[in-house]
Amino acid sequence: MNTVPTLQDIRAAAERIAPYAHLTPVLTSESLNKMVGAELFFKCENFQKVGAFKFRGACNAVFSLSEAQAKCGVATHSSGNHAAALALAAKLRGISATIVMPSTAPNIKKAAVAGYGGKIIFCEPTLQAREDTLAAVVAETSAEVVHPYNDYRVIAGQGTAALELMTAVPDLDIVMSPVGGGGLLSGTAIATKSLSPSTLVVGAEPAGADDAFRSIKAGTLVPSVQPKTIADGLLTSLGDKTFPLIQSLVSQIVTASEDAIIAAMRHTWERMKIIIEPSCAVPFATLLERKFEFEGKHIGIILTGGNVDLDRLPWLRD
Amino acid sequence: MNTVPTLQDIRAAAERIAPYAHLTPVLTSESLNKMVGAELFFKCENFQKVGAFKFRGACNAVFSLSEAQAKCGVATHSSGNHAAALALAAKLRGISATIVMPSTAPNIKKAAVAGYGGKIIFCEPTLQAREDTLAAVVAETSAEVVHPYNDYRVIAGQGTAALELMTAVPDLDIVMSPVGGGGLLSGTAIATKSLSPSTLVVGAEPAGADDAFRSIKAGTLVPSVQPKTIADGLLTSLGDKTFPLIQSLVSQIVTASEDAIIAAMRHTWERMKIIIEPSCAVPFATLLERKFEFEGKHIGIILTGGNVDLDRLPWLRD
Repeated sequence: MNTVPTLQDIRAAAERIAPYAHLTPVLTSESLNKMVGAELFFKCENFQKVGAFKFRGACNAVFSLSEAQAKCGVATHSSGNHAAALALAAKLRGISATIVMPSTAPNIKKAAVAGYGGKIIFCEPTLQAREDTLAAVVAETSAEVVHPYNDYRVIAGQGTAALELMTAVPDLDIVMSPVGGGGLLSGTAIATKSLSPSTLVVGAEPAGADDAFRSIKAGTLVPSVQPKTIADGLLTSLGDKTFPLIQSLVSQIVTASEDAIIAAMRHTWERMKIIIEPSCAVPFATLLERKFEFEGKHIGIILTGGNVDLDRLPWLRD
Repeated sequence: MNTVPTLQDIRAAAERIAPYAHLTPVLTSESLNKMVGAELFFKCENFQKVGAFKFRGACNAVFSLSEAQAKCGVATHSSGNHAAALALAAKLRGISATIVMPSTAPNIKKAAVAGYGGKIIFCEPTLQAREDTLAAVVAETSAEVVHPYNDYRVIAGQGTAALELMTAVPDLDIVMSPVGGGGLLSGTAIATKSLSPSTLVVGAEPAGADDAFRSIKAGTLVPSVQPKTIADGLLTSLGDKTFPLIQSLVSQIVTASEDAIIAAMRHTWERMKIIIEPSCAVPFATLLERKFEFEGKHIGIILTGGNVDLDRLPWLRD
C-alpha cells in the first residue's frame, strides 16, 4: 500500500483485523466531564490486545501481506508497544517476527515480545545501530519491515479506532489523540474528517516533546531533539508520511505540561477506575490546562494504552 | 420490606434503580483465563456509581421509602462505600442522609460522603459508640436506618448485579462474590439460584477474616473477632438476615491468603487494565490458590469496587 489511505482503506483494515482485535468499549465519566465542562467519550484502547492501539496497525500490516511476502516474516525496530503488537500479529498469522531492540530496553518490554514468540535481536541504543541492525536482518531474511508509524498500512490500521468511535458516538465536535510519530493521529484524522468533515481533529503532545507542535508552526518537519517527558510513548518525531497528513487534516496541535499529564493520569485512574499509561493522559491533560476552546463540546478521546510499570507510579516518585 | 427477597423483588429493585445506577459491563480476559484454566466473566461494579456495588442496595432502599418515610431522611453508621452510596442515593431523591462515622475514618472517606451532601456525625471508634450515636440521630430525626447489609431492601438491591450478570452470560456454572457482611452474597445467591438452580454460588473470604467460613462450618453465626486483612471491605461479621440465606443457598465459602489477594489484585490491574480494590480481588485469589474444583468452568465474578488509595498500593508497602 503505497498511497495515502482513504476511508475505504480504513474500512478494509477494520474488516481485516476484526477476527483478531477487540472492539473496545467507549466509556464516559461524569466526574471528568464536570472537571473540564465538556462531554468526553473515551475510546478504550488500553483494553486492546497487547494493551495498546498499536495492535491495530501491526495486525493490518501483517494480514495485508501476500502469501509470498508473509513467508519471509516481518521485522521492525522498536522497544515499545509496537514491538509486542507486531510479534503478536505475526504469531496469529503463523509467521516469524524479528524485533530489533536496544540492549538497554526494560526487561518487561523484552518479556512481552518474547512472550508473543517474537525473535529479539539486541543492538546498541542508538538510532544508527537500530537501523543498521534492522537492515542486516532484512538482507538475511527478506523480512517485510513494518515501521511503527511511517507506514500507510499501519496508519490505516490505527484509523480503525476512530472509525469505531465515530460509529459509537456519531455527533462528536472534536476528536483527540496523542501524537508521537503521528500514525494514530493520521489514521484518526482520515477516518474522522471522511465521516464528519465538520468535526475538528486535535493532536495532543507533551510540552517536553513538542516536535509536532513546532513542525506545524514551522510548516516543515522539525525533528524531536532530546525530548524529555514521562509520556514515553511520544518521544519520536513525525515521519514524512504522517507530517503532511497531519498538516492537512488536523486543526491544531496542543501541548500539556508534565504536571498536567500526571494529574490527568491520576484523575483517570481514580474516577474512571481504569489503568492508562502516561502517554494516553495527554489529551485530557490539555483539557485540564484549557489549551483551546472546547467548553460544552462533545469530545472523543482515544485512550492509547495501559501498559504501566505498577512498581513505579509517577505520583509516587521522588 | 420485612420478608426474604425473591427474584421478583430483585427485578423490582432493578427497575427502581435503573434511572440512577450504571448498567456495568461484563469484561473478560484471556490472560486471566489462562492463569486459572477456566472462563471468567467479571461484572464490573468498580465502574458503578460511587465506585462500588453498594450503590445498588442503598439506592433501592432509599427509593423504596414512602413519601412520609422519605421526608425524615435516612441514616446509617459506616465509614466505607455504603456511607458514600447512601449519601448519593439520598441526594438523588432530594432527602437528607446522616452518616455516623468514627472520628478515625480516613479523610478520603469523609470527603466522599461530604461531597455527596451527606451529613457526618463523628463518634468514638467503637461499635457501642456507633450504635448509640445512630440511635440518638434516629430519636431526634425519625430517620430511616439503612443498614449496610442486614436489610432486605439492601439485599434485593445488591442482587441486581447478579441479575444483570446472568442476563449477559446465561450459561454460568459458578457465580462468585466476596463475603463481608453477606449482603451482596445473599442477593447474588437469590438471583442466581432463582434464574439457574444448577449454577453454584461460591462466597470468597480473606483467611484473615473468615467468619462466614467458620459460621457455615459451625452451623451457627460465629462473629468476626479481630479480623486482619488488607481487604478492608470484608472485616464485618454476617448478620442474622444474611447468614440463613447464605446457609441455604451458597454451596461453599472459600478463603484466600493475603499474598494471593495482593497477587490477584495486581494481575487484574496489569492484565485487565482496570482498578479494583483489595476486597474484590478475593474471589480470583481463591482461584489462583485452587481452593475448589472449577477447571474448565464458566465462572461469573462480581468485582465489587474500585476505591483504592493510589498513594498506598499493597505491593509497594514495606
